Amino acid sequence: MLKLYSFGPGANSLKPLLTLYEKGLHFEGVRLDPSKFEQHSDWFKAVNPRGQVPALWHDGRIVTESTVICEYLEDVFPDAGISLRPVDPFERANMRIWTKWVDEYFCWCVSTIGWHIGIRPIAQSMSDADFEEHLKKVPIPEQQVKWRRAREGFPQELLDEEYRKIGVSVRRLEDRLKDHEWLVDSGYSLADICNFAIANRMPAGFPDYVNEADTPGLIAWLNRINERPAVKAMFANVPMEKLATREPEKA
Amino acid sequence: MLKLYSFGPGANSLKPLLTLYEKGLHFEGVRLDPSKFEQHSDWFKAVNPRGQVPALWHDGRIVTESTVICEYLEDVFPDAGISLRPVDPFERANMRIWTKWVDEYFCWCVSTIGWHIGIRPIAQSMSDADFEEHLKKVPIPEQQVKWRRAREGFPQELLDEEYRKIGVSVRRLEDRLKDHEWLVDSGYSLADICNFAIANRMPAGFPDYVNEADTPGLIAWLNRINERPAVKAMFANVPMEKLATREPEKA
Repeated sequence: MLKLYSFGPGANSLKPLLTLYEKGLHFEGVRLDPSKFEQHSDWFKAVNPRGQVPALWHDGRIVTESTVICEYLEDVFPDAGISLRPVDPFERANMRIWTKWVDEYFCWCVSTIGWHIGIRPIAQSMSDADFEEHLKKVPIPEQQVKWRRAREGFPQELLDEEYRKIGVSVRRLEDRLKDHEWLVDSGYSLADICNFAIANRMPAGFPDYVNEADTPGLIAWLNRINERPAVKAMFANVPMEKLATREPEKA
Repeated sequence: MLKLYSFGPGANSLKPLLTLYEKGLHFEGVRLDPSKFEQHSDWFKAVNPRGQVPALWHDGRIVTESTVICEYLEDVFPDAGISLRPVDPFERANMRIWTKWVDEYFCWCVSTIGWHIGIRPIAQSMSDADFEEHLKKVPIPEQQVKWRRAREGFPQELLDEEYRKIGVSVRRLEDRLKDHEWLVDSGYSLADICNFAIANRMPAGFPDYVNEADTPGLIAWLNRINERPAVKAMFANVPMEKLATREPEKA
């Protein structure tokens, strides 16, 4: 049996979620509520000591790290639904360069701006005592620092640098997608899923960067992915009966 | 035919180099000279536009990114020499968590201190004009910034933080290796190779962190790896006739 702990279909959580839908794998969805800091609760840290979603429970074993989970699902269920990894090793390497780039570059610049807009008001609305109490539950020191910086307000110099990187990221995607259907030549793959996880909300969140006029290839690619039956099912089914509301059950 | 462009058996270059030796794959080694900034030369940027080693040439196609190259070699030559990826998907996922951690955390803190010690004097010995001329050849903006910071001297606050991360990294390795032979349960794998690439020089470079008294498990693991015939061959053969001195030939 498969059980995915996630925040639902966005950012890193989207990667294994969409992989499960694309492969047609039956799973139980356990949604955590980030506004309640459920990822830092004791029950969830018993699942993943790092206090991070997504995490996959599979017959008693826990796999963490979104990109690793996607490759794991391909390793365990290569024949389920469609294959999301190229057969050709060279194309597979290209796929991994794209997924690695998401994890090491693209997701971070988008994330900082997301924290600046979304997490800062939450952190600032907390009393000093509540905030310090919360920080104690965050297991990763770098995350604690990020919470503090979000509350203080990220320095403008850092925000400027992150926007620069967003510009670089968008250009890299557009350079490929302006004349290609998918990120690797062999077709739709984990490269598309992992980049889509970060890019899908950019036309709304970063309209100066991602729009019909400046990035037509990127927009067309987002539309192509959003038209896929698995993607529609993923968005429509969340949160529905297939994705049970979170239960602090033992893994 | 296989051709590996590298700096020789250290850091990221070591990963695919040792993978090739372990798998007994015949290859031509092309060693670049970092003291001559050969990785930023036009001939090499025609091989890898990012100006980074290692890069693998395989029958006319170029694979980049050290960890991706290692997986590529396993994908193309699964039966050559020993298999360096666990068969069990769960163990394989654990292997990838270790290799990903090297790329996203462990290598960076060690690298900054390495730059502080090794690159700073080089950057400071250059005239302003030479330095600026050199920077123009560095294709990655973040690398340009790192060069500038190395020349100015990294802020003490940053160095302190990197040393903290080195401490975290060493403890993570020791926690596993104090009572395990290898990083994943199934045996010697790319997890060991990729961590060894960064850790092998630490007893000499960071003796306060990695030593017999404080990290006996890590030291024993380094010794075990250094005793492997492939590792001895790798160190002994560099630079030898099998590893041709760099030739600015066309890929």
